[in-house]
Amino acid sequence: MKTIGKSLSIEEVEVAPPKAREVRVKIVATGICGTDDHVLKGSFPNVDFPVIPGHEGAGIVESVGEGVTCVKPGDKVIPLCLPQCGECSFCLNPNTNCCLQTHLYQSQNLMPDKTSRFTCKGKQVYHFLWISTFSEYTVMPDSTVVRIDDAAPLDKVCLFGCGFPTGYGAAVNTAKVAPGSTCAVFGLGGVGLSVIMGCEASGASQIIGIDINKDKFATAKDLGATECINPQDFEKPIQEVLVEMTGHGVDYAFEAIGRVDTLTAALASCHRGSGVCVMVGEPPPGSQLSFDPMMLFTGLTLKGSILGGWKMKDSIPKLVTGYLQKKFKPDVLITHNLPFSEINEGFELLRAGKSIKNIFIDF
Amino acid sequence: MKTIGKSLSIEEVEVAPPKAREVRVKIVATGICGTDDHVLKGSFPNVDFPVIPGHEGAGIVESVGEGVTCVKPGDKVIPLCLPQCGECSFCLNPNTNCCLQTHLYQSQNLMPDKTSRFTCKGKQVYHFLWISTFSEYTVMPDSTVVRIDDAAPLDKVCLFGCGFPTGYGAAVNTAKVAPGSTCAVFGLGGVGLSVIMGCEASGASQIIGIDINKDKFATAKDLGATECINPQDFEKPIQEVLVEMTGHGVDYAFEAIGRVDTLTAALASCHRGSGVCVMVGEPPPGSQLSFDPMMLFTGLTLKGSILGGWKMKDSIPKLVTGYLQKKFKPDVLITHNLPFSEINEGFELLRAGKSIKNIFIDF
Repeated sequence: MKTIGKSLSIEEVEVAPPKAREVRVKIVATGICGTDDHVLKGSFPNVDFPVIPGHEGAGIVESVGEGVTCVKPGDKVIPLCLPQCGECSFCLNPNTNCCLQTHLYQSQNLMPDKTSRFTCKGKQVYHFLWISTFSEYTVMPDSTVVRIDDAAPLDKVCLFGCGFPTGYGAAVNTAKVAPGSTCAVFGLGGVGLSVIMGCEASGASQIIGIDINKDKFATAKDLGATECINPQDFEKPIQEVLVEMTGHGVDYAFEAIGRVDTLTAALASCHRGSGVCVMVGEPPPGSQLSFDPMMLFTGLTLKGSILGGWKMKDSIPKLVTGYLQKKFKPDVLITHNLPFSEINEGFELLRAGKSIKNIFIDF
Repeated sequence: MKTIGKSLSIEEVEVAPPKAREVRVKIVATGICGTDDHVLKGSFPNVDFPVIPGHEGAGIVESVGEGVTCVKPGDKVIPLCLPQCGECSFCLNPNTNCCLQTHLYQSQNLMPDKTSRFTCKGKQVYHFLWISTFSEYTVMPDSTVVRIDDAAPLDKVCLFGCGFPTGYGAAVNTAKVAPGSTCAVFGLGGVGLSVIMGCEASGASQIIGIDINKDKFATAKDLGATECINPQDFEKPIQEVLVEMTGHGVDYAFEAIGRVDTLTAALASCHRGSGVCVMVGEPPPGSQLSFDPMMLFTGLTLKGSILGGWKMKDSIPKLVTGYLQKKFKPDVLITHNLPFSEINEGFELLRAGKSIKNIFIDF
């Protein structure tokens, strides 16, 4: 649980039964995503405290409320940080995965009926993204949970709740990386490394990883990066280095950090006639991106990508099945398995750049 | 001819014969494009004076230099303001129409050998975009001229030199407007009206024209606009009006003026999950586009379009043939036919919003 301005504390929380169209899930494993760290730092907008963060988990349905038909007790499931209600105009639009129930359009700090299922020492605790996976038990609307294959190892496939599909999908869905193309990936955390996997799977011929932490380079190369560079090793701006490395700029650049300065650099590293720059990281609230629009004039494309463009209910079960068929290898991202009691240590490892993915088990 | 800070003056100019890989063309008709007005106002970058502007013309080959094989004397031709050398990496890249000989990458104020073919009273006069169509005779590299159908009426198809393909292609090539979609077109000059023709041809179900000059609305509706609105008629920002008109924003927004404020409004009028904003107008040099990048995060795309994405040598002859087959009706854009001697009056009509396309004939 997180109270504003403090690190996480583990508390006894009462988790009420699911109401109609809600599901109570026993979380078996959950990872940290950078977004959770933004919550802890207070830089994620519209979060109410005290809150139970966490949005990259996997578990087993414990009970369901009235009217729930998509899952039943005992099902292995992944909670979805991006809902798919299946009914709104966005869900019915094949060109977006961004359901109108998404937190960007409505608050997910309480259940849809505007009450909480969490109580600690008699006081209400808030939900996060409707799924709050940093809890042994959690309740979510049925639009935000999907059944996966019974054979799926939950301590691995929890990554399909956010990080892996976000990065992988940015390459294969949003950018639609073409075979033989050149790619630059800014930021080699779990999302950036998943972008590299997507570029590699798409047949890119040159994949350049960019990070100021050289410890990430070996994994990036294992996953398909053909080169890795550290901007601090160059006197000139990294975008100029990339343009020189590729002749006229990369075909695809991905920003997987969530910073405006790296987004500007990613944009400037693209081929002016045909480059595609994809914003994968979520920039801080109130950011301003500024650039000379002539950069775009000759054909450059700048676009955003949320959760890799996947409609989550439709896609996550298929991706998990693909994982079981060994089509993807996101477990390479898991550097640490920690008991849930060491969650603050996990955040420290992440911030120090000593881990890629910390998975918490043993609730 | 244009000297800096003055209106155009018509002078006797000596036009030297074409050198190797150059073509001398007798211009039969030429239109004004907004870019020519930018030259006159001094806001088009990297122009040397005195200069002969003009880049939307049609004519007949008078003579060719050594090594020219693509055209011969007597051919009807369109000079190309965007070269297609056919050999550079951009020409070999199917995803861009922006040849490396384009003025954005190298100066076109002199022929490729860095000399001028124009002399007036013994003094050198500069070329513009290598084609300088405001001249009875003009010389250009063979990468910037293409033969068209012998049956083409030159006083009409001169529009295929810039305005019509720029707008039409922004819709059909750059945005790839889908049937049944909603479109907003900012600016109802020749380019914006051509965007409307492209949206209409693509089967868009709602096409909203936006201009502060209501005199443009009738033509816009004739060409396919389903509604036309004037931002000055609303108290709220036009992007909010458009979002309300369409539910969650338009599928495609086109900026066809070349202003940063309208580009920002176009971006903000797009559907956040799947909208595509296309920058068609060329913004003033040194402009800065600033916006909160969260606008893009849920899937919005911002992209530029130069000359409608057409590789000009490959495409313009086909477009002219399509015109002869009555597939396009750009002549609707031609509001005035003027003798060349009235070129300054033509610019005045354009600036006053009293004309769409002024075509100069009778050199």
